[in-house]
Amino acid sequence: MANDELTIEGRNAVIEAFRSGKTIDKLYILDGCQDGPILTIQREAKKQGSLMKYVSKERLNQLSETGKHQGVIAVAAAYEYASVEDILQRAKEKGEPPFLILLDNIEDPHNLGAIIRTANLAGAHGIIVPKNRAVGLTATVARTSAGALNYTPVAKVTNLAQTIEALKKEGLWFVCAHMEGTIMYELDLKGPIGLVVGNEGEGVSRLVKEKCDMAAAIPMKGDIDSLNASVAAGVLAYEILRQRMN
Amino acid sequence: MANDELTIEGRNAVIEAFRSGKTIDKLYILDGCQDGPILTIQREAKKQGSLMKYVSKERLNQLSETGKHQGVIAVAAAYEYASVEDILQRAKEKGEPPFLILLDNIEDPHNLGAIIRTANLAGAHGIIVPKNRAVGLTATVARTSAGALNYTPVAKVTNLAQTIEALKKEGLWFVCAHMEGTIMYELDLKGPIGLVVGNEGEGVSRLVKEKCDMAAAIPMKGDIDSLNASVAAGVLAYEILRQRMN
Repeated sequence: MANDELTIEGRNAVIEAFRSGKTIDKLYILDGCQDGPILTIQREAKKQGSLMKYVSKERLNQLSETGKHQGVIAVAAAYEYASVEDILQRAKEKGEPPFLILLDNIEDPHNLGAIIRTANLAGAHGIIVPKNRAVGLTATVARTSAGALNYTPVAKVTNLAQTIEALKKEGLWFVCAHMEGTIMYELDLKGPIGLVVGNEGEGVSRLVKEKCDMAAAIPMKGDIDSLNASVAAGVLAYEILRQRMN
Repeated sequence: MANDELTIEGRNAVIEAFRSGKTIDKLYILDGCQDGPILTIQREAKKQGSLMKYVSKERLNQLSETGKHQGVIAVAAAYEYASVEDILQRAKEKGEPPFLILLDNIEDPHNLGAIIRTANLAGAHGIIVPKNRAVGLTATVARTSAGALNYTPVAKVTNLAQTIEALKKEGLWFVCAHMEGTIMYELDLKGPIGLVVGNEGEGVSRLVKEKCDMAAAIPMKGDIDSLNASVAAGVLAYEILRQRMN
């Protein structure tokens, strides 16, 4: 599949994509497949005018990124990345101080998917990722996001440090995840905030870190170095939510 | 590889296993491989009396569970599961009230690995898993635990509900993760505690849930149903740690 296409694999994921109003350009369906969920998908596709192609199992396996297509793969021609303004607008509509999660080059699609899922449930208004290096919104990301990608906007920016600068002018504070930072419980994380989570191996890059107002450390009571990136993002995002709920 | 064997794949993981004092019964090494890390592994293996087998790349690929063996696969004949008593003893030695994490049939090895990693850093004294259905301590689990499996004991029990009953007599309280429970911030999670986290799809099983003293809910401010299992375990484990630190 071409790089910038979003493929959605599996029956529930495809049905959910239609229901959330996503534009599906093309559907690959296993030839001869006629059960309930597939009929639902065909009905939705006709309604929307999506192109349907009936293909062999071999062709589906070849197109599949996850290996778990369950007889159907949908292609949204270009995933609709949101703009940073869209995300701020979303916070405004909800009457909440903005809560953004910025990912400094997350590389593992499972981590990105899990973080989008967490962002949705922790009440973040959107996610910002940089254009280069980081993983894009692939089928694996969509799957592991468990549907959250349909609700939580993801914006792509050229330069994270510059975006932080611009958002500071809008009144946001930035806190980055950092082992040598202040224990997160001791920081004031209420108000308009951007949480910056770093790459799996290297953490938050120096340039981005320098732009942040605070560095938050998760307490580490064990023997190893670091949490899984999506777990760390979850623990920090929920500490922000806890403080907001107080 | 036989079911109850622990295979450790990749140079760093194998060297770390030797250094942590793990017993390696057998090593598969890529025939002709003679670089620094491999020489270190051979030296450690001689010291310990591990059997070394020099095999082809095809054979290694065939034996590999992760596809990332980097020329070496180690086999620890039977992974040393700890006993529940070992875990309680560990808490006692540290002079801390016991903090256990019980996993009700986690099926994804990446989730299990991430949870062992979290347990280590959140200060849990050990993990208890049931014998049936759940994923065992495979090479993928060891890899994703990022070394935590060498420090945090994992005990395997026949029946989780019975184990909970027995541990209640030792003074432990049990809290299970449950969407319809009390918001976790409102519960008193200090003292000797067992945190029960359910399966990816079905959550905590009814029988196990009935044995628990409390049900804790993570606040959900979004549109989808649930967090990734390892993120949920992380958020709950850190809420317990937060309350303990107060």
